[in-house]
Amino acid sequence: MTATQLDHRSGALVVTVLDTGGRPLSHREVIVEQRAHAFPFGNIGFDLVALANEETAPAPGVFGAAAPDHAVRLAGLWLEVFNTATLPFYWSGFEPEPGRPGTGRLRRAATWFADRGCRVKGHPLVWHTLAPDWLRELPADQVEAAVRARVRREVTDFAGVVDAWDAINEAVIMPVFRNEPRRNAITRLAWERGRIATVRLAFEEARAADPAATLVLNDFDVSPAYECLIEGVLEAGIRVDAIGLQSHMHQGYWGEERTLAVLDRFARYGLPIHLTETTLLSGDLMPAHIEDLNDYQVACWPSTPEGEQRQADEIVRHYRTLLAHPAVQAITYWGLTDEGAWLGAPCGLVRADGSPKPAYDALRNLVKGEWWLPPTSLRTDGAGRVEVRGFLGDYQLYCAGRPAPFTIAAPGPAATTIRLAADPAP
Amino acid sequence: MTATQLDHRSGALVVTVLDTGGRPLSHREVIVEQRAHAFPFGNIGFDLVALANEETAPAPGVFGAAAPDHAVRLAGLWLEVFNTATLPFYWSGFEPEPGRPGTGRLRRAATWFADRGCRVKGHPLVWHTLAPDWLRELPADQVEAAVRARVRREVTDFAGVVDAWDAINEAVIMPVFRNEPRRNAITRLAWERGRIATVRLAFEEARAADPAATLVLNDFDVSPAYECLIEGVLEAGIRVDAIGLQSHMHQGYWGEERTLAVLDRFARYGLPIHLTETTLLSGDLMPAHIEDLNDYQVACWPSTPEGEQRQADEIVRHYRTLLAHPAVQAITYWGLTDEGAWLGAPCGLVRADGSPKPAYDALRNLVKGEWWLPPTSLRTDGAGRVEVRGFLGDYQLYCAGRPAPFTIAAPGPAATTIRLAADPAP
Repeated sequence: MTATQLDHRSGALVVTVLDTGGRPLSHREVIVEQRAHAFPFGNIGFDLVALANEETAPAPGVFGAAAPDHAVRLAGLWLEVFNTATLPFYWSGFEPEPGRPGTGRLRRAATWFADRGCRVKGHPLVWHTLAPDWLRELPADQVEAAVRARVRREVTDFAGVVDAWDAINEAVIMPVFRNEPRRNAITRLAWERGRIATVRLAFEEARAADPAATLVLNDFDVSPAYECLIEGVLEAGIRVDAIGLQSHMHQGYWGEERTLAVLDRFARYGLPIHLTETTLLSGDLMPAHIEDLNDYQVACWPSTPEGEQRQADEIVRHYRTLLAHPAVQAITYWGLTDEGAWLGAPCGLVRADGSPKPAYDALRNLVKGEWWLPPTSLRTDGAGRVEVRGFLGDYQLYCAGRPAPFTIAAPGPAATTIRLAADPAP
Repeated sequence: MTATQLDHRSGALVVTVLDTGGRPLSHREVIVEQRAHAFPFGNIGFDLVALANEETAPAPGVFGAAAPDHAVRLAGLWLEVFNTATLPFYWSGFEPEPGRPGTGRLRRAATWFADRGCRVKGHPLVWHTLAPDWLRELPADQVEAAVRARVRREVTDFAGVVDAWDAINEAVIMPVFRNEPRRNAITRLAWERGRIATVRLAFEEARAADPAATLVLNDFDVSPAYECLIEGVLEAGIRVDAIGLQSHMHQGYWGEERTLAVLDRFARYGLPIHLTETTLLSGDLMPAHIEDLNDYQVACWPSTPEGEQRQADEIVRHYRTLLAHPAVQAITYWGLTDEGAWLGAPCGLVRADGSPKPAYDALRNLVKGEWWLPPTSLRTDGAGRVEVRGFLGDYQLYCAGRPAPFTIAAPGPAATTIRLAADPAP
């Protein structure tokens, strides 16, 4: 990895600094610091829903929900590295009884993140797994109507605070999904209507409800099957804003070569790629023969010292590989803490006892270290100019303590002019 | 398997027999016999191309080409059971030098089969494997133009004798095919243009060249990937006449349950299903871990007595299962003889020495036995009527040696009137 490989992530901005009267502040000491990344470094926010709702009792479980009294510490760790939260809209948990959705609780969670400068994503609007039981016996037309209404309702209710959605999850396997005792209603709908019709209804309703939202097609299947689905969906004229790739690497890190091959295959559709669900284990790996990761049940799956070193190494390699690929426009890690993690796997960046693993520090050292501009002294030239080189994102300049914000918005060289809100001492 | 399960394959036709003057031939003895099946029982005709061309030297090899001096005997065995021949249009063999296609040789082969009452199918028009080397360095636009011209040329040249084509073969893997030392031009085209565009150009050119031809989308991939491709192709408005499923069972017979599950999955698109490439081995099976069957190379792969019994049992079970499914509208077995068979596998119905295996007899006993009406005496009623129950197909009735043809064209009860060409003795 050389610096060159991340040129598309950073800019060189010439900032002309003016005083309140519009005069260049020439030959002055200024301090410049980065305030936020433009790139979405995401994680699930499931553990913090209870905190945002000031709950003290454990919540009914969705994947990943730490005990409420651990949440304050986790919140600090979360906000130190991540800027984009994925919230759980699993239908069966969100609306266990028809007509009684958990809108208020998730809205408070979404607002909590937004108040802290984070973007919020909803996951997922349509999925066969965790479809509500009360949908099961309805005829297909009523299932479709219920799905449409649910998509419309959630996207409408969260417009303005949730700005991205996994519109549909795992459509490749959806109509033929059989790893359950009784077939769920969404699988039945997709079987009867076809995948593309099902994808279309999800995108159609979500798009109508919030035209500004980023709508993601998301799948764990990174085989040619998903390519075929994408090609059909695009051919059908369905507007997809991003291709979501899950990468739950419970069976081992993909490595650079496979990762790049996958990215190149899915990049050729010209759409942004979102790594929507990334996990790397800090313990034993799941055996390779397990096809549905959900089938792997172990009583205890500890994080180990060797596993933690490996995870730290792999997370750095993986994020470097992903950031280097121009098509990648978001990465969401799937889980902050091992406490309550999906499958009990040691996939968190924080141990169940709340202490950060090496992978947490390693990722922070990228996101808030190597890829981040800390407060830095510069001197304006005679025309009041400084050049700021840094990752795309929001910055602040101070001159004798007087602040002015600016943004590095695009890769390459650019120029901007900022004016201080109050004049500094001369 | 009960008779009921094949009701959709057979009819009950009341035939009124008239003399040359139009008078019913009442209370007369008649003989009725089946002459041909409507159902396409296919096999490759590769071994008989040399015979049809009166060649005496071995031909440059394509998959399956027995020595010319064995071909007369093989021809008899072929025609006894099969009525639909697949001929090899593999591009690199068909046109080794640009502009010098082997049209004449294959036309003589096609005509040979047609003269013997067989339908003829061409395989395949577009495929990445066996793409000609001379295509490799051309830019994509020229590759596309060459593919279009080749499809148009073959379909035009064979219109009227070849009535079905595998328009495109293995499009699921086509753009990402990598099991070759250097990437072929068709894979590159499919990578750059996408699968659906590549499928479209194959169907578009073939359809324009012969609107009457049956155009098949063919694949070995029977996973959800192929479903996704089909859904996209149909969504794109490409008219597909049949879904082709390969079933080279070198790693073992699928069994009834899997076969039915596959058929049900692909039947839901409402299109005819053609089993385009069916093989069952009469020897050791290929290990399950081989992904690309072409990767399995053994010095000697014998047919064994136990294997032959198993093959005979499986071919009967498989054809019964396939015929029982209403969506299945053609079955092609892939190979008559082990001599020169693909991969050297003992997949033939005839041993390399020319003697029929038990599977040959077993299949003949279905096609020309259990599913066939041999010459049968019936007696017309007072109105000159007999009821003929049999598989859909062509029949002949004789009254005192005077013939009249008729057809059982549709399942269920029906009636027709035939007139003898010459009056029988009273």
